[in-house]
Amino acid sequence: MSAIKPTNLLNALPGAEPHERFESLLRQPGFHLERILSWGQVTPEGEWYDQVGNEWVLLLAGAARLLIEGQDELALQPGDAVLLPAHCRHRVSWTDPGQATVWLALHFDSEG
Amino acid sequence: MSAIKPTNLLNALPGAEPHERFESLLRQPGFHLERILSWGQVTPEGEWYDQVGNEWVLLLAGAARLLIEGQDELALQPGDAVLLPAHCRHRVSWTDPGQATVWLALHFDSEG
Repeated sequence: MSAIKPTNLLNALPGAEPHERFESLLRQPGFHLERILSWGQVTPEGEWYDQVGNEWVLLLAGAARLLIEGQDELALQPGDAVLLPAHCRHRVSWTDPGQATVWLALHFDSEG
Repeated sequence: MSAIKPTNLLNALPGAEPHERFESLLRQPGFHLERILSWGQVTPEGEWYDQVGNEWVLLLAGAARLLIEGQDELALQPGDAVLLPAHCRHRVSWTDPGQATVWLALHFDSEG
């Protein structure tokens, strides 16, 4: 077996990019773990995420604001985790334009 | 539906405690997500974790060292993630005694 080495999710972040970057970390039958890098990007005006699966999302670095339909906007700081049930309409209304914002997103099928 | 609110995994950490603290965040049929708080604790001398499931672990804060059987010790810093396959014998050989070390651990059944 080759040696197991850590992967760092916060070091050597890229500079500003024109699009969000989605990187798969772990894909399994019932879930998918990904890292998302934002640099000022937001969900396009008037669009909402309306996902068939559930999502647990953790802000690892940077700063963002999340709008969940029918709620006040949430300001997220590192360490903030939010559970978004399937079909909970939401959009990213702001990410810090001055630094990379790093998200960890766990998408999963069932609430068990 | 009641409002969805973030939970912060890094704020308001407890002070030093005599034992590690394991907190379940999300338990689903195929996986279990938990936060682990360490404050200087290590796996007891001579003991190893030998788990029937896989574990993906991410150091969120603090500092730790992980020993995987047959490898050199790994020094972990915030952002470091390690995938430990089932039955990969490992032990936590050091956690910083001067601050809380916060782990995010995703235990899952299958490698797909």
